[in-house]
Amino acid sequence: MQIDISRAAALLRENDDILVLCHAHPDGDTLGCGYALMHILQALGKRCRLECADEIGEKYRFMTAGLSDCGELEPKFIVAVDVADIKLLSDELAEKYSDKVDLCIDHHASNTEYAKAFFVDSGAAACAEIFCTLADELEVNITKEIADCLYTGISTDTGCFKFSNTTARTHILAARLMECGADISEINRVFFETKSLSYVQLERMALDSLEMHFDGQCAVITVTQEMFRQSGANDGETDAIPGLSRQIEGVKVGITVKEGKDGTYKVSVRTHAPIDASEICGQLGGGGHKRAAGCRLRTDLDCAKKQVLEQVEKALAESVE
Amino acid sequence: MQIDISRAAALLRENDDILVLCHAHPDGDTLGCGYALMHILQALGKRCRLECADEIGEKYRFMTAGLSDCGELEPKFIVAVDVADIKLLSDELAEKYSDKVDLCIDHHASNTEYAKAFFVDSGAAACAEIFCTLADELEVNITKEIADCLYTGISTDTGCFKFSNTTARTHILAARLMECGADISEINRVFFETKSLSYVQLERMALDSLEMHFDGQCAVITVTQEMFRQSGANDGETDAIPGLSRQIEGVKVGITVKEGKDGTYKVSVRTHAPIDASEICGQLGGGGHKRAAGCRLRTDLDCAKKQVLEQVEKALAESVE
Repeated sequence: MQIDISRAAALLRENDDILVLCHAHPDGDTLGCGYALMHILQALGKRCRLECADEIGEKYRFMTAGLSDCGELEPKFIVAVDVADIKLLSDELAEKYSDKVDLCIDHHASNTEYAKAFFVDSGAAACAEIFCTLADELEVNITKEIADCLYTGISTDTGCFKFSNTTARTHILAARLMECGADISEINRVFFETKSLSYVQLERMALDSLEMHFDGQCAVITVTQEMFRQSGANDGETDAIPGLSRQIEGVKVGITVKEGKDGTYKVSVRTHAPIDASEICGQLGGGGHKRAAGCRLRTDLDCAKKQVLEQVEKALAESVE
Repeated sequence: MQIDISRAAALLRENDDILVLCHAHPDGDTLGCGYALMHILQALGKRCRLECADEIGEKYRFMTAGLSDCGELEPKFIVAVDVADIKLLSDELAEKYSDKVDLCIDHHASNTEYAKAFFVDSGAAACAEIFCTLADELEVNITKEIADCLYTGISTDTGCFKFSNTTARTHILAARLMECGADISEINRVFFETKSLSYVQLERMALDSLEMHFDGQCAVITVTQEMFRQSGANDGETDAIPGLSRQIEGVKVGITVKEGKDGTYKVSVRTHAPIDASEICGQLGGGGHKRAAGCRLRTDLDCAKKQVLEQVEKALAESVE
């Protein structure tokens, strides 16, 4: 059942022994919301714990400052935060909590409405924006600890206010969180100004592979298993690589071809308007969004590049017609 | 004479045929303020022109949208924007306009008070923050064109709200400029998500030179004249390189050693607290700020690195005492 934010607040006020669920491969927004909610619930004198299928990185540790450990409490009420689909909890947790999520608070328009009650505000750039309002509804003061969690959610989900999802409300909430004590320079240093040495080495090797095609309109970067071995980087550190090729001046289509452990190639396509990345990948059995899409090719590296470049050439030709 | 913002507005209202001066090596803040002021003055029906010693890059062209060309008007009133010291206009313009600047509007605490009247708000993260207030004082509506100029000033001077100079007011003004129509996704794409191919090549070569010292606490990157030749990059494109080494996880001191055309080496030092970059550079005849400093060494590359690393070793040893 779709509910409003006041009803969501009321459900939290009425219940205790609350389990907070974050999505797998956790990011700053799901964890920022999850831990902010823990702080809010504990301020209301409630017992709660947080569950996430994957290990939570060291850099999120600050979010737990001041939280009490309520041990392995048996949940009487289950809330999912920033989880668009129950499958995103992980296969195991999705099965365990199937039909058991009492409340979902989310900002994805694609939310599958799997929870008994859900509040989805797809106009929020980050789910953390919603939790600012929720704290007000519950009349919980936004402490420095809560502000740090929510600022992290907002800044990481908007690329530090750079992405087009950023709204005037996003900035107004950021101002308020700063006034509540959020340590923005430390948070932004950790999330936007820190790279592991192994990632820097991988990026260097990936840039060594850079090829330009079609008069500089298409850049191709290749990431091989050998590069992972040499750099010591792991697959989870490659999220930023597909963005690199599109950043080059004059490039309309940025391609990243990444060799998988099974010898297949994962292709990421990033475009500038008007080129449609999902159309390019759709021709190759993949899909995605207009500006970011992907596909997987079971062939060798040269053939993989050739297949993608054929589609890119068509898309570039169509774009000038 | 120090004046308040109302008096600054009054001076602009009382005068006509106004020359707006921006600093040399112009950036998004000085040009954002300069062109916003042109829009404001023309909205008041005044004649004005802008002068800057250096060529203004193509990416700032959008700021002139909708401005009238008043030709080579003979200025009756001269305003400098975001110019902390008259010397920063360039040697030639500093001499030409020495003692002739009627009004300076700036946000640098180091402002040398060279203008007949000056308004300096050092609490403003960007000079563009001040121009939001100035538009209100002059009762000029912040149009989309003015909002684009001022948003550019604010976002470029704060690293898109990432730097520690960002305040709650910065965010509140960004929200307002968005409501006035600032095209933040295009502006941020141009200023934060675009790199020239030659810069990408230079960065790749610079990362090839990466050395780690003192158990990963110090990273050294070298940029040679040969790298400039091979990449086709120019010296003006290297501003981001000194930041790269400090971004590596665990690094407390990031060093960039850049070979000059005259064979000397320019050393840039970037640190994390508590290491004092200005102290390291001070020992080598240079100086700067706590987190960012520099010096120039007249020796060969190996000796230059050795001299800097000796000082870094001392600073690291002192920091754990």
